[in-house]
Amino acid sequence: MSLTYVSIGQETLNPHNLPRPLILETHVKESPLLSSDDDDDDGSDVTLHCTSWRFAVESNNLSPWRTIPQECQDYVKDYMNNKGYKNDLERVAKEALVFASSVELKGDGMDAWVFDVDETLLSNLPYYAHHGYGLEVYDSEAFDKWVDKGIAQAIESSLKLYEEVVKFGFKVFLLTGRTEMRRNVTVENLTKSGFHGWDYLILRGVEDHKKTATQFKSEKRHKIMEEGYRIHGNSGDQWSDLLGSSMSARSFKLPNPMYYIA
Amino acid sequence: MSLTYVSIGQETLNPHNLPRPLILETHVKESPLLSSDDDDDDGSDVTLHCTSWRFAVESNNLSPWRTIPQECQDYVKDYMNNKGYKNDLERVAKEALVFASSVELKGDGMDAWVFDVDETLLSNLPYYAHHGYGLEVYDSEAFDKWVDKGIAQAIESSLKLYEEVVKFGFKVFLLTGRTEMRRNVTVENLTKSGFHGWDYLILRGVEDHKKTATQFKSEKRHKIMEEGYRIHGNSGDQWSDLLGSSMSARSFKLPNPMYYIA
Repeated sequence: MSLTYVSIGQETLNPHNLPRPLILETHVKESPLLSSDDDDDDGSDVTLHCTSWRFAVESNNLSPWRTIPQECQDYVKDYMNNKGYKNDLERVAKEALVFASSVELKGDGMDAWVFDVDETLLSNLPYYAHHGYGLEVYDSEAFDKWVDKGIAQAIESSLKLYEEVVKFGFKVFLLTGRTEMRRNVTVENLTKSGFHGWDYLILRGVEDHKKTATQFKSEKRHKIMEEGYRIHGNSGDQWSDLLGSSMSARSFKLPNPMYYIA
Repeated sequence: MSLTYVSIGQETLNPHNLPRPLILETHVKESPLLSSDDDDDDGSDVTLHCTSWRFAVESNNLSPWRTIPQECQDYVKDYMNNKGYKNDLERVAKEALVFASSVELKGDGMDAWVFDVDETLLSNLPYYAHHGYGLEVYDSEAFDKWVDKGIAQAIESSLKLYEEVVKFGFKVFLLTGRTEMRRNVTVENLTKSGFHGWDYLILRGVEDHKKTATQFKSEKRHKIMEEGYRIHGNSGDQWSDLLGSSMSARSFKLPNPMYYIA
């Protein structure tokens, strides 16, 4: 199995259509780098192959991708709905908590923690369950309709971490790719699902619509740091939440094998 | 299961004892973030738990660690000796190759690729197989004796990638935490195992011994960039090979669940 990358033009951007991957990934058979003894196609090999793919996602080795590999749909569905996802979420929350509790806050109110929102604090799993767990190409209008319902539930382990981070006295910045148009529904959804006491909720303004998430979030972190805040921790499910410039001291990558945001 | 972190003092540094993690990880039962239904201790739960741990390693979520979790020794042994490791190595080499072939080289000889050496180009698996696959605390003298034999074999998928990268015309920098004392044996081992045609082999000088790998490698990349090189790709099995400052355009994280270098 090898991957062929087909460049496709950047779509016209509007508030309903935020930057998404510009590369389409298709799967074709055989690669010079895969030896022939990997070609037997039983279930355990699919699991091994899809685990390998998921590792590549989580270690940021992949080019931007638009949909999950077709042969991995059952694997992703199983992972998301069973202990795999839950365990990984709990593990990263635990590591973040150990780190957060080790930080000596200066007491000047300038020690900060950044959280992303979607698939970090709030789960859109019910939406993705109805859209092939990432097998369908992202449909911004359908997704926005889901967001507007304001019924996304808290990721439990993230909520516990969040509450501790607030309690420790960190200034909490929520930094999301959602647009300002969705500020109210986002605040309502967060509050209803148990998130209270954040300090700033930063959404994409009109001027940010053409920026990649990496660029937008790096710029916002830069501003936060310019104001004198020390960003100790940053929790996000996308590498574009964590990398770029003005990075936090420690980053916590939550699992997400369903979609990729550049 | 939860983790307790016990700080231990930094060891006296000498050429035989390069910077290693300063944190000892011990494992004790029960965490507030793990719910009770994860407590059944059958084989599949150990696999799930150790897979989750391995994901945390590969997504850079962990604090520095000194040894692998004891309960994961069989898991790591199995992963390293079977298709899991091989598949993951091939996947990352493939992704790197796709990227390398997409770079339009300027023809001025300033397009560069950086490779780490140990567990990136050369495999020390026979050494670690005799030392519990990472369960034993790192023993610098024993490891140096192994290195001095000069018999580490090429990681096949990395060699294929390396050869292509050389063929494409990238300037190839080998950037390793090995010390200058081991330049000769490193050159011999690399050559004997099939690596030819690199441009620079950068090892730790005396002035670098007290630096973390992240610091040492960032400084060296900074120098490379100051000289006008454009670092497109960077392949390494440690996050300290890839992160820090003066980062490459794309990073390729090779799997390594056996040890951690800060």
